[in-house]
Formats: sequence, C-alpha cells, structure tokens
Amino acid sequence: MPKIDLAAIPQTNATGYPPEYADVVRGRWYRRLAPAGGLADYGVSHVTLKPGGWSAQRHWHEGEDEFVVMLSGHAVLVDDAGRTPMGPGDCAAFPKNDGNGHCLVNESDADCSYIAVGRPAQSDCHYPDIDMHLDATRGRQVRKDGSEF
Amino acid sequence: MPKIDLAAIPQTNATGYPPEYADVVRGRWYRRLAPAGGLADYGVSHVTLKPGGWSAQRHWHEGEDEFVVMLSGHAVLVDDAGRTPMGPGDCAAFPKNDGNGHCLVNESDADCSYIAVGRPAQSDCHYPDIDMHLDATRGRQVRKDGSEF
Repeated sequence: MPKIDLAAIPQTNATGYPPEYADVVRGRWYRRLAPAGGLADYGVSHVTLKPGGWSAQRHWHEGEDEFVVMLSGHAVLVDDAGRTPMGPGDCAAFPKNDGNGHCLVNESDADCSYIAVGRPAQSDCHYPDIDMHLDATRGRQVRKDGSEF
Repeated sequence: MPKIDLAAIPQTNATGYPPEYADVVRGRWYRRLAPAGGLADYGVSHVTLKPGGWSAQRHWHEGEDEFVVMLSGHAVLVDDAGRTPMGPGDCAAFPKNDGNGHCLVNESDADCSYIAVGRPAQSDCHYPDIDMHLDATRGRQVRKDGSEF
C-alpha cells in the first residue's frame, strides 16, 4: 500500500547532539518515512515541532541537499539572511555546501509539522553558532577542535 | 534565500506523452523546485491538479523511487490495490521497480496540490493500462512493441 500510515510509524525525539546542545531539539518529534515506504534514493522525515522546538542547531551540510515543505502550523526559518516566516505550503531548499547555516524554530504556541527530504549525512556538517561539528569520518558530533564531548 | 518563491517559478503543463495519452495530464500544472532552489541530489515538483487532472498515466519506474505529500485539496491514489483517498498531510511512497502502477486523480471539483520527490527518470517506465512505454535509452515514450508514436 503506497499510502503511508503515519500513526503506525514510531515517533522519536532522539538526537546525536551532546546534552549541552540537545535541549532545543527535545521538542522535535520525527518519523522516518523512507524505510517504512521502501524508499532508498533519499530520506524523508515527517517532523512535528512542539512550541519552542527547533528543527536542529543552525547548520549546513558539505555534501547533502535538504528540502522542507511546511504542512501545518508556523515556524521561523533562521539563516544568515535573517528570519523568514514559514507557513503551510511554504517550501525551502538548502543546497549542499552553501555555507548558510539554517534551522526552523517553532516560536508559536501550537505544534507545527513539515516534511524534510535529504540523504543521510555522509559528509561533515557545520554549526556556525556553537562549538560543535559533525565529523563524518567518525560518524558523530565533536568539538570544533576535533576533541570528543 | 532558502524559502522558495513559488509564484516566481514558471508553471507548466508540458508532457512528453503523445497526444492520444496526454489528455488526462492537461490539468497537471507543475513547478520544478530543485533547479530554482539549487538542489541536485533529487528532483522536487510542486504540482496542482485541476479538477479531472491526473498526476500521470498509471505507471511504475524501474529505477527511481517516488514520494508525494498532499498539501491541499483531495485526490484519489489509484494503484493495483484499488483506490485510496488522499488529503492534506497524507504521504505515499512508490519504491522503484515494485511493479505497482500508480497515479493520483483529482476527482473533486476544486484544485488539489502536492509535492512530488524523485530523481529524473534514467530507467524505463511501465504503463500497465495503455500501449505506452518509456524507453530510457531513447529518452522518450514509445509503444510497447518499441515502435514510435
């Protein structure tokens, strides 16, 4: 059955961030749709941000394009250009290696939801605002000087 | 600016189908978002189906996964399993080479819109209901016996 039964897919707020940077994503609840749907060409996540929740620490990937489309509620897209309101039907594209750290923040008092598309990160990811770096070789977050958390 | 200005992207109902099979997709108006957004890992289209419009002739790809999420309005997903209603927020996945011909049909009296994700077709595509076949080597639609339209 091609239609995806969202309610049947476990929802998680798991993160690989170390505790000192994880608080902002505690309100990010996501479902991985690609494995459930049998897709391998790219990843697809259905994400709900609780009020106050962030999609991620502000970041950019060296090697993976990202795309999001808002389904419900409202969020603020934060990037080097400033703050951009995002509502239902709004789309945003984050090309690989553009150096423009970005994230979505739910500043409203209701949930918002969106679909995010992207391949699993196999390249380094940069976080301009904090002392964190995704070292793809080691497959985990480290400090910017390469030391472990 | 990561947010995509949909209104600034030209909308088209162009199709590579021959005239005898093109009528059902005349009401399919789409915008290609990946080039506009600078994405190369996969294609993303924003599609509006006018009342009576089909997403495509019922088909399946040998080599490309497809994913859709409904944004507004209502459509019917038609595949080998039958007819499945699709409304805002509903998602569907079409794994490559699954042999399950599928399409969305807008049977309502209002527009519906959705986001479709997939890589450009570089493999053959099969149409179970009609005498048409996408020959990837030739890069165009032909009859099932390989003859040109």
